[in-house]
Amino acid sequence: MTTPDPAPRELTVVLLGGGTVGSQVARLLHESADDLAARAGAPLRLAGVGVRDADRPREGIPADLLTDDLSALAASGADIVVEVMGGIEPARTLILAAMAAGSSVVTANKALLAEDGATLHAAAEQHGVDLYYEASVAGAIPLLRPLRESLAGDKVRRVLGIVNGTTNFILTKMDEQGADYAEVLAEAQALGYAEADPTADVEGYDAAAKAAILAGLAFHTRVHLADVHREGITHVSADDVTAAREMGFVIKLLAVAELSDDEKGLVVRVHPTMVPRTHPLAGVRGAFNAVFVEAESAGQVMFYGRGAGGAPTASAVLGDIVAVARHRLAGTRGPGESTYAHLEVRPVGEAVTRYYVNLEVADRPGVLAAVAQAFADHGVSIQNVRQDGAGDDAMLVVRTHTARDSDLGGTIEQLRGSDAVRRVVGVMRVEGEDGR
Amino acid sequence: MTTPDPAPRELTVVLLGGGTVGSQVARLLHESADDLAARAGAPLRLAGVGVRDADRPREGIPADLLTDDLSALAASGADIVVEVMGGIEPARTLILAAMAAGSSVVTANKALLAEDGATLHAAAEQHGVDLYYEASVAGAIPLLRPLRESLAGDKVRRVLGIVNGTTNFILTKMDEQGADYAEVLAEAQALGYAEADPTADVEGYDAAAKAAILAGLAFHTRVHLADVHREGITHVSADDVTAAREMGFVIKLLAVAELSDDEKGLVVRVHPTMVPRTHPLAGVRGAFNAVFVEAESAGQVMFYGRGAGGAPTASAVLGDIVAVARHRLAGTRGPGESTYAHLEVRPVGEAVTRYYVNLEVADRPGVLAAVAQAFADHGVSIQNVRQDGAGDDAMLVVRTHTARDSDLGGTIEQLRGSDAVRRVVGVMRVEGEDGR
Repeated sequence: MTTPDPAPRELTVVLLGGGTVGSQVARLLHESADDLAARAGAPLRLAGVGVRDADRPREGIPADLLTDDLSALAASGADIVVEVMGGIEPARTLILAAMAAGSSVVTANKALLAEDGATLHAAAEQHGVDLYYEASVAGAIPLLRPLRESLAGDKVRRVLGIVNGTTNFILTKMDEQGADYAEVLAEAQALGYAEADPTADVEGYDAAAKAAILAGLAFHTRVHLADVHREGITHVSADDVTAAREMGFVIKLLAVAELSDDEKGLVVRVHPTMVPRTHPLAGVRGAFNAVFVEAESAGQVMFYGRGAGGAPTASAVLGDIVAVARHRLAGTRGPGESTYAHLEVRPVGEAVTRYYVNLEVADRPGVLAAVAQAFADHGVSIQNVRQDGAGDDAMLVVRTHTARDSDLGGTIEQLRGSDAVRRVVGVMRVEGEDGR
Repeated sequence: MTTPDPAPRELTVVLLGGGTVGSQVARLLHESADDLAARAGAPLRLAGVGVRDADRPREGIPADLLTDDLSALAASGADIVVEVMGGIEPARTLILAAMAAGSSVVTANKALLAEDGATLHAAAEQHGVDLYYEASVAGAIPLLRPLRESLAGDKVRRVLGIVNGTTNFILTKMDEQGADYAEVLAEAQALGYAEADPTADVEGYDAAAKAAILAGLAFHTRVHLADVHREGITHVSADDVTAAREMGFVIKLLAVAELSDDEKGLVVRVHPTMVPRTHPLAGVRGAFNAVFVEAESAGQVMFYGRGAGGAPTASAVLGDIVAVARHRLAGTRGPGESTYAHLEVRPVGEAVTRYYVNLEVADRPGVLAAVAQAFADHGVSIQNVRQDGAGDDAMLVVRTHTARDSDLGGTIEQLRGSDAVRRVVGVMRVEGEDGR
């Protein structure tokens, strides 16, 4: 057994980035110094904060710790380098330099991990250092340890996550107020829940990066951002939300990662989804995040909390700092990347889902038969059909049993070309019914 | 850095106990052998299963692995000894013998941990081995790693847990069906959700043991079962449930552990509690468990899942086995017991809570004044009062602001002795309102 040093030394921490998260981390390193020292096993000393403009004073960070020489700071050989700048470059180069200098790295950078996690993990392995990134997915919610450690003795079948607070805020407001997407987006922007350019959130890019990280952890397989099927929420209408509510559903932007039936493949996807109101994810409202995991032995497990914000993210970063500090004192490392399963990441067409389809249909006999035939032609079994209105307002609402996503897509294609159908009004995947 | 053996050796695992959980652990060690080996870093070999009657065949366990010589098995020097027998003795003696022989220990034994965790932790420290016990609280829900690792950089203020599935099943049924306690208990017994002798569950003993373990982890302080204030659910009536529903609340048996305002003390308590229906814990139904944590930086975090059952508990045990196996291969240990904070565990009278009080009052003027005076005499501020009915049926429903539990108790005492009050019909603590 390795024994920690009898008189524990001090550990040095440097921060790359002094924005919202970085300044909270700096504050907590100072304010909680005694607790952190007791839990880590040695005092943690903040040795430098790298920022773009070192002359601008930052609350809570002593001026003499600020530097704009990020490269020198990253390569300074600190015990722990914390990267909270975001973006691909220069973050990647700095992290690699830190590892080469023997530093363990804690990062909140989901974009970089989803884009090029393999390079970072390989460097951590090569240099014998830790790479921890709890804060990269769902902010303060502990997910990485549960997935890669607590469930290490189980087989995960499915992960369903609400991992983007902005879109969940918008969808919650649309559900509660019956308001339209554009209206709620403006409100979210005014409240600071959405950026001036909301693309990364509302088009699902942020959620897709997190989905790649989650899927990799849950299924012990390397998943790249490009492997993730992605649809945003910009086409979700007030009518869709109303229709969902009438059927006992709520619309959520879900990140879904699921093992295939042959257990050799995996589909990872992000899209607006109808979820039954009785499902635990349906109650996750506003800017909260949650990740729902189905594992063979554990059954259903859910993790819930704040997905963003300076303090929640800093909490996750500090938890990682304590873990990494303990490892350095003990002369060991935590679990590295686990990709032994090498599952095949398959296209979304191979996913198995249910669909909700809302059709404006022609006012003549035989319409239902024609619609039903389109589903049958693609081997998609209908769960139920509801006909609303008559004449020019006739609508058909179809819900399907589970089928291959490509078969469902083919059905929609056929319906779009059918004389019986005036317009395909709404199409959405349905998850969380009957344990699927 | 310590490097694992280049050619990983095999690790031996022995089980003490071959009941519901033990047989599931044995099955999974066999069925998931490849996954477990990849995740742990070496094959895990089941080397023996200790049971009372070794002649009785057990499904999934080869007969030649069974032995009734538990002492010899525990002290055999296996890499990992898994204790899933339950109860204080002989479990404690066997675990201590295992540690003395250099084995790391994984246990699901909440009763033993709450009763004498200090002895076990001290032995683990002395012999340089791991003591892991994820399965002891809330079955399959990962809690220990989140609390002692993910939140290690944060300050936990409060833990609210639904940690007993039997009582949650009963209270959920009472809420859904309006049925009485005795009726639902009988149904729970018929369905196998409650034991023939349900005392440990319905009187809160099981929840109190888990509360002690959770509080210890969350607050870095040793908490003994005897420190936990405990009230069961046997006095919860259908009327209480109805009154709660009418006010927008649901009754849950909560385990509550809370930091005092001076941050030097801690109160740990288990009792039926009114929770607003909008609170995430309100939606935790049936035999599910959940633990809600409020931390200074992370904010509100919740963990949800199955709290009991052979497979879910086995999932948690196997997660611990993998972690402990990794540590042995790396020649290190996980975090040991953390009790550095040494908070004072205070009596329930020092808790700060809100109360709901339902009174049958006399039919005469001045009753409300007399009742209000009783609250004022103890410095308890009233949030609202509702008067129902008139004459002999006159009822007063009082809800208070937060106050010291002992002051609330003194108020009830005074009301019981007052001429204005015919009968104190219901008294219950309220948690989860306005972030309290």
